[in-house]
Amino acid sequence: MLVGDLPTPALVVDAVALEHNLATMATALPAARLRPHVKAHKCTELARRQLARGHHGFCCATPRELIGLARAGLTDDLLLANESVDPQRLRAMADLDARVTLAVDSEETVHAAARAGLREVLVDVDVGLPRCGCPPDEAGRIADAARAAGLEVRGVMGYEGHVVGLADRAQRIEQTEASMAMLLAAHEDVGGDVVSGGGTGTFDINTWATEIQAGSYALMDTAYAELGLPFRRAVHVVATVVSVSGNRAIADCGLKALGMDHGNPAIDGAAVWFCSDEHITFSRDGTPEGPVNVGDRVLVWPAHVDPTVAYHERMHLSTGASPDAEVIDTWPIDLRSW
Amino acid sequence: MLVGDLPTPALVVDAVALEHNLATMATALPAARLRPHVKAHKCTELARRQLARGHHGFCCATPRELIGLARAGLTDDLLLANESVDPQRLRAMADLDARVTLAVDSEETVHAAARAGLREVLVDVDVGLPRCGCPPDEAGRIADAARAAGLEVRGVMGYEGHVVGLADRAQRIEQTEASMAMLLAAHEDVGGDVVSGGGTGTFDINTWATEIQAGSYALMDTAYAELGLPFRRAVHVVATVVSVSGNRAIADCGLKALGMDHGNPAIDGAAVWFCSDEHITFSRDGTPEGPVNVGDRVLVWPAHVDPTVAYHERMHLSTGASPDAEVIDTWPIDLRSW
Repeated sequence: MLVGDLPTPALVVDAVALEHNLATMATALPAARLRPHVKAHKCTELARRQLARGHHGFCCATPRELIGLARAGLTDDLLLANESVDPQRLRAMADLDARVTLAVDSEETVHAAARAGLREVLVDVDVGLPRCGCPPDEAGRIADAARAAGLEVRGVMGYEGHVVGLADRAQRIEQTEASMAMLLAAHEDVGGDVVSGGGTGTFDINTWATEIQAGSYALMDTAYAELGLPFRRAVHVVATVVSVSGNRAIADCGLKALGMDHGNPAIDGAAVWFCSDEHITFSRDGTPEGPVNVGDRVLVWPAHVDPTVAYHERMHLSTGASPDAEVIDTWPIDLRSW
Repeated sequence: MLVGDLPTPALVVDAVALEHNLATMATALPAARLRPHVKAHKCTELARRQLARGHHGFCCATPRELIGLARAGLTDDLLLANESVDPQRLRAMADLDARVTLAVDSEETVHAAARAGLREVLVDVDVGLPRCGCPPDEAGRIADAARAAGLEVRGVMGYEGHVVGLADRAQRIEQTEASMAMLLAAHEDVGGDVVSGGGTGTFDINTWATEIQAGSYALMDTAYAELGLPFRRAVHVVATVVSVSGNRAIADCGLKALGMDHGNPAIDGAAVWFCSDEHITFSRDGTPEGPVNVGDRVLVWPAHVDPTVAYHERMHLSTGASPDAEVIDTWPIDLRSW
C-alpha cells in the first residue's frame, strides 16, 4: 500500500528518517547514556526499536506508559519521571515484575511511594523550569525522608525544560551548565549513582547528567527542527485536500490531529492560514508541485510531536516522506491516556 | 464515588449544567430547528440526551461520528457537514440503514458522493469563513451537477464560523446577517428545503437558517463562556496537585488532556502559568480555598471544548462542579478519530 492510499488524516513516520535518528542518537549517547522518553511517541513498538539500539532503560510520564512497557517485557529499568500520589496506580507499578523507579519531590510523594510498595526513587529537583521538583537545597531532606521510609534513593533528576528549546546554541550551553550546577549541588546532598536530565535540545550539551531523557529526537517536530540538530523530521500527518477555492485549499487535518500549543503546523512550500477542528486551510499557490486539487495528498508537519501523537490510534511507517512512498508497517500508539 | 476519588486527569461533566444547557437550547430551538453538532462531544450517550430533548437530526464532522450514531440507532437525519472524497468511507455511509446527507462544494465531491451510492446532499457555501464551501455564485452550478449525477439536493449549508466567537453581540448580529444574505442568495439558485448554518455563538441571532448546527452549547468552554450566552460551563478536567513549591502548584492536566488552540485553560481563582505535556503550573495563592497542597483536586476549565474532549476516553457525569460532587454516570467518548 502507498501512503497516498491511507485513509486520512493518517499519522505517518518516515522510517528512513526514524532509523537515522535512532542510529545518530545511539552513537552519540550509547546504551544507558540515553534513557529514551516514551512520552514523545507512546508506542511500544518504537520503544522496542530503541531497545534494539542498546537503550535498556526508559523514561515515562504516565503510569500507563510505564505499565505498558513492563507488560511488553521492557522491564530492565523503568523511570516514572513524574510525581504521583495515586495509590492504585502506584501500587499497580509496584506490583510489576520490573525495576521501577519513581520521581519524588516532597514528603507526600515519598510517603505515597513507600505506602504503595515501590522500592526505588530519584529526587526530582527544580533546575529552573517552574514545574515539579524541589528546590535544590531541599533535595537532601527529601532523600533522607525517602531513606527513612525504606526507599532506595538512586540519585537525582532535573529537567532543564526551559532550556531545551532555546534557539541560540550558546544560550543553551550556558543555561544547561547553570541548571546542571544546581542539580549537581543537590546530588551532593542526595547521593546515589544517577543524575538524570536533558532532552533532545541538549542531548549533546548536557555532559553533566549521567543519562539523558530525550524523546522527541526519534520522531522530531518543526520546533526542534529549527535548532540545527542532527535529527530529521520523521513524523507527519498525511491529509487529503477536500476543497479548493481561489488561492486557498483545505485538507482534512485539524485541531484533533495536531498538538497546537507550539502554533500552526507546516506544509512545505505553502503558507498555513489556520486550523479548525477537522481542517487545515493553506495557500494553494506556491507549493513545490504547483496548485493543489481536490483529492491531492499533502504532508502536514506538526509543531509539537508529543500532543500530536497522543491524538492518533496508530502510526504508519513509510519508505519516505511522500504520498508515493510505501507503507511498510503500522504500529499501534498503545500507551495513550493515563 | 465522588469526583475527588476519580483517577486523574478525568474529564467531568456537571450534569446539572448539562441539563440546563440542553433544556435551554431545546426551548430556544425546538426539534428540527436545532441539528446538534456531535463533533463538540463525540459521545453517543450525550447525543441520545439531545434526541430525548426532541432533536432528531444530527450534524457530524467525520464519517466515524456519523457511522457511530447510525449504528446506535440515531438514524433519522444524519448530516456529514464536511467534504469527503474517500471512496470507502463514503460507501460505508451510503450502506447505512439511515438517512444520510453529505456536504458537497465541488464537482469532485459531487461525483465522489454519487459514485459511492449516497443519495442526498447539501451544497456547502462559503459565507466568509475561509474554509470549505463554494463561492455563493457557484452554488447553483454545483446543485445542477449534483442533480445531473442523480443526487437529491436538499438545500444549502453555510457556517459563519468567523462570526460565532466575536465578543461584541452587535457585531455578531451584523456579520451573521451578512453571511446569511450570501447563503440565502445561493439558496435561491440551489432550491430545496434546508438552509443549515449557525453555531453556539449565533444560535439566537441566526434566524435565517432553517436549522442551527450548534454543538458547544452542551458542554461549553471558557471561550464561549465569555459571550454572555445562557449556557453554563459544564465540562472540566479534574486534576490532582502533585507538586507545590513556593507560590506555584503543579497538577496532572497537561497538553494531552486539553485542546490548546484557544490558549491556556482556566482554574478559578488562580493564575495559570503554562501547560506542558502532562502538567499545568498555576499560582498557588489566591484560590478561593486558599493555598493548595499536594493531593488536592483542582478543576481545570478548557478553553476549547472540541479538541479537549477528543483526547479523553470517557466523560464522567457529576452532580456539580466540585471534587465533592458525586459521579452519577460514565459515558464513553466513542466517536473519536476518523
